[in-house]
Amino acid sequence: MSQPMGSTSRDFGTIAIVGVGLIGGSIALAAKLRGLASAVLGVGRDAKRLEEARRRGVVDEGLDLAAAARGADLLIFCTPVDRIVVGAREAAAACRPGALITDAGSIKAGICRDLERNLPRGVDFVGSHPLAGSERQGFENADARLFENRVCVVTPVENCSRAAIERIGAFWTSLGAKVVEMSPEAHDHALAETSHLPHMIAAALAGTLSPGNRNLAASGFRDTTRIASGDPGLWAAILFGNRQQVLDSLSRYDRSLSGFRRALEDGDLVALKQLLQAAKTNREQIDALGN
Amino acid sequence: MSQPMGSTSRDFGTIAIVGVGLIGGSIALAAKLRGLASAVLGVGRDAKRLEEARRRGVVDEGLDLAAAARGADLLIFCTPVDRIVVGAREAAAACRPGALITDAGSIKAGICRDLERNLPRGVDFVGSHPLAGSERQGFENADARLFENRVCVVTPVENCSRAAIERIGAFWTSLGAKVVEMSPEAHDHALAETSHLPHMIAAALAGTLSPGNRNLAASGFRDTTRIASGDPGLWAAILFGNRQQVLDSLSRYDRSLSGFRRALEDGDLVALKQLLQAAKTNREQIDALGN
Repeated sequence: MSQPMGSTSRDFGTIAIVGVGLIGGSIALAAKLRGLASAVLGVGRDAKRLEEARRRGVVDEGLDLAAAARGADLLIFCTPVDRIVVGAREAAAACRPGALITDAGSIKAGICRDLERNLPRGVDFVGSHPLAGSERQGFENADARLFENRVCVVTPVENCSRAAIERIGAFWTSLGAKVVEMSPEAHDHALAETSHLPHMIAAALAGTLSPGNRNLAASGFRDTTRIASGDPGLWAAILFGNRQQVLDSLSRYDRSLSGFRRALEDGDLVALKQLLQAAKTNREQIDALGN
Repeated sequence: MSQPMGSTSRDFGTIAIVGVGLIGGSIALAAKLRGLASAVLGVGRDAKRLEEARRRGVVDEGLDLAAAARGADLLIFCTPVDRIVVGAREAAAACRPGALITDAGSIKAGICRDLERNLPRGVDFVGSHPLAGSERQGFENADARLFENRVCVVTPVENCSRAAIERIGAFWTSLGAKVVEMSPEAHDHALAETSHLPHMIAAALAGTLSPGNRNLAASGFRDTTRIASGDPGLWAAILFGNRQQVLDSLSRYDRSLSGFRRALEDGDLVALKQLLQAAKTNREQIDALGN
């Protein structure tokens, strides 16, 4: 480590980004722009893509996972969620003592609980989930300001050291994010409602549209279904990895939607207006947060 | 009429806008900007608001409905959908022979079929629905370019004269819109799927969000629920006025969502990915239309 654990310094030493896509590329650019790293290493499965990321200056050097792990003070896994555990285990075996690992995955319990049990002593893992992203993909769309004023959830387990938790928090804060600390399980419960269920609903709605009506889909339909353009493989792994919580959120949503259905079936205009008013009020509370 | 019916001229004479809100105000500004009217009259229930719209130059003069109807060649009802029929009937009684009436309502069958039977001879009604708008309200948000490159559905009934249909189409075309002609019933069937159901789904989802999770609602949740901020009274009237078609669309959506639920319950990652892929493909077909 270039810095002692728990340091409030903004020098995080050598950072390895595993998975240089939209999120990984944005972290790399942000770390370089803000002078947080002595070097940013990139790891990727596609050698040509990795070389292109290096050529464009997104990362300083492209390496394989073991080589990057040997050189890194901080490793950040930005791969699809179903590849984080295996990658982090492999990296940890090659890491120097004192190295710190985090990720940017949209689900946390499965990842954090596995790595809690399966990392060697001397290498810490603290889970992260920056609430930033886009239906766009690839480092070509990376943005050094992607995390500014966005929430980043950090999800320590009980035996994480306070120093490691604070260092990961300091990293995201240094990228401009607002750090919120939660247990992995509380994260997955909340995100099922705020992200995973909305994705499934948007996809179900997009899947309903009749081809003949496409030219009549205006901004309302487009906004409501925008996230359905996200990568199917990435999202299948997220929904699958959090399926019980997503199913629970779906049940709550079903009850909400049933209220609308009943109001329509009963021809109850007053009830319908009340439901719409409650939804509007709830929706506006989000904007009122101003983030 | 300043122009013979069916003229392709872009002079629509004196235009009366009934309901000077976001849509009415935008039509007024666009008509003035493009030189389509010799005068734009405004009609509104709130005298102070109407005077403010006049003061800001959105309309040239504020009048009551009967006075505006007596002076207008073209009347456009931009009131909430549940006030269009009564207003159009009242206006028609005061209109000069040859006057033409249209509207901008989001539902069409109830309005067009009522007015088909209940207008005096010499006054034509042809329904319209410009697919433009916003969750914002009021003429303060009016935009002269709101209709450019947007679809406007024109919904003639069987006994509408071709001249009247063409004149209404020419008006929207002059505002920059792309006119699509459909029966009122076909419109309501399609819009249930592309607009009314999405609104209800967005509202049901917004209503599901737990207060404690608001700070974790990122861009995905916000996009998906944006339209839930629309005016509850306006939208209750729209959903209520098209309730059978909305319920039918809801049944189709329920089947789509059930596919996702089953894939999660069965732990079927392959099926889940296929559903997400189909949704993405369908969603991208809309963007591919480029409008």
